[in-house]
Amino acid sequence: MKTTWIENGEVSLRDVPPPARPGGSALLRLITGGICNTDLELQRGYYGFSGVPGHEFVAEVAAADDPAWVGARVVGEINLACGKCDWCARDLGRHCPHRTVLGIVRHPGAFADFFTLPVENLRRIPQHVSNDHAVFTEPVAAACEILEQVPFPPGSDVAVLGDGKLGLLIAQVLAAHGLRVCLFGRHADKLSVAALVGVQTEVVSGPLPEATFRYVVDATGSAEGLAQAVRMTEPRGTLIMKSTVSSHVAVDTAPIIVNELTLVGSRCGRFDPALALIASGKLHLDEMIAGRYPLSAAPEAFAHAATRGTLKVLLTAA
Amino acid sequence: MKTTWIENGEVSLRDVPPPARPGGSALLRLITGGICNTDLELQRGYYGFSGVPGHEFVAEVAAADDPAWVGARVVGEINLACGKCDWCARDLGRHCPHRTVLGIVRHPGAFADFFTLPVENLRRIPQHVSNDHAVFTEPVAAACEILEQVPFPPGSDVAVLGDGKLGLLIAQVLAAHGLRVCLFGRHADKLSVAALVGVQTEVVSGPLPEATFRYVVDATGSAEGLAQAVRMTEPRGTLIMKSTVSSHVAVDTAPIIVNELTLVGSRCGRFDPALALIASGKLHLDEMIAGRYPLSAAPEAFAHAATRGTLKVLLTAA
Repeated sequence: MKTTWIENGEVSLRDVPPPARPGGSALLRLITGGICNTDLELQRGYYGFSGVPGHEFVAEVAAADDPAWVGARVVGEINLACGKCDWCARDLGRHCPHRTVLGIVRHPGAFADFFTLPVENLRRIPQHVSNDHAVFTEPVAAACEILEQVPFPPGSDVAVLGDGKLGLLIAQVLAAHGLRVCLFGRHADKLSVAALVGVQTEVVSGPLPEATFRYVVDATGSAEGLAQAVRMTEPRGTLIMKSTVSSHVAVDTAPIIVNELTLVGSRCGRFDPALALIASGKLHLDEMIAGRYPLSAAPEAFAHAATRGTLKVLLTAA
Repeated sequence: MKTTWIENGEVSLRDVPPPARPGGSALLRLITGGICNTDLELQRGYYGFSGVPGHEFVAEVAAADDPAWVGARVVGEINLACGKCDWCARDLGRHCPHRTVLGIVRHPGAFADFFTLPVENLRRIPQHVSNDHAVFTEPVAAACEILEQVPFPPGSDVAVLGDGKLGLLIAQVLAAHGLRVCLFGRHADKLSVAALVGVQTEVVSGPLPEATFRYVVDATGSAEGLAQAVRMTEPRGTLIMKSTVSSHVAVDTAPIIVNELTLVGSRCGRFDPALALIASGKLHLDEMIAGRYPLSAAPEAFAHAATRGTLKVLLTAA
């Protein structure tokens, strides 16, 4: 079968035998994959990664222990948890210390003709949800995670910084949750996607408001953006740090202590609420698709995705 | 009158006229002052400070609008808030953007024969509480602030890092609150103070436990200590950042995001619960006093306080 391969900063294609299917796992045939910033960071050497990337996907179940799964169109939680530890018992396999992670940590990823995941990770996609929408389930789950971590009072004002893929999804998800979102970014065209769902948007040119928001989400992925987010948060306010993690962004703790801010690190989330939100039709996702390539053109797809300002680039089965 | 003076890194004594007493304020005669790390940082140039330091004090009211105050033995909240803004309306004058701060920000401090504070900042000291104990009200309030910010389940395990003055008080306060505290530090003699109140203590020599505590308080004031505290916090756990702020300690956000930690910046707190806790006799404070100097020997007192490993140095009226 064909698979994407990352090694030494290069994305290439390889021909390899299809993966063996462990008991309890499904063999999955890729339908659509989404390239995430984490994939680009893996390419840059994050986690010392080499192997098959890909963790945002829609797939068809090609084989499983239970024949009722075969043919199902699915998405899947990316953390493969041990199922036995305290974290797993608390339904927090995303923090299982023994976990592997699809396409990121010691489990071959989805950018291949076939790949495997435990059946318990799979979620059936409702029939009316398109592949193009369902492929956003993982990043939408990451955005929804904020709602699980922070108890926003209804109708709260929230500032979101950063109009990249994740910032746009966060703004949309929080708005769909009834919060009053103001999205700050540098690109009017990207901000316009969030404006479609009623998010207030502001193109950042000059200084930003200081100590104004009780809730701020930093999705800039930059030290400068995070420092700005700290300044925008009012005393005793909450700042959610939402970004990929390769950059090892540092933050000065002095203003956090003086203003008694709460910082909440936020990573990936549950698929069920994300899939339900996508199925509700409340999110504008088509507008976030910047390109579409067959798996056989994965190197070009990665190059496109790495172009500054690019939104979601998809890979499709050949 | 005699006053301590900090300028260009030097502590000296000056003879100046006593301060005018604004309406609504009390003229206070110093009985006992406590030298805090913040005072030492002011000496090192923090906030570009020059002037009279001192914010931990016990004083006698020498003059006030209401004669019922005169002669009272008091401590006092150090933030002079505007009383009119939203923060003040929420009883959070400690975050009033217009505030001045006794001995720190544009209000002459307590290390002088006389100083002033608004009467609403004052708290009468119960008769059975000694000056040596009452002078700890401000740092005990800073320790109590953690309890106001973080909803610990009863009996929770909490790790406290750092056996300096603040770390010892935090460990004692949290233990008095019924939490199971483990204090990590480098000095067996200092740790022994916390052990008196049932705190488990551990002299740090080798590696510390990783991802073990749901609640961790960093009171080390160092970047290395804070990074260690991040490592000790279990996924989804809460890390309270408690220290003076001059050092502009930076923290890498990557492990905070991956493990979805919550970081809580914590500064100063309300005096009422602190004074009540001191009055309860549950804290061991005498053991934390390392030296005692008359105000006229303030330069020597500061030099002693700045000696590595020194606990609380007191200043007393001549």
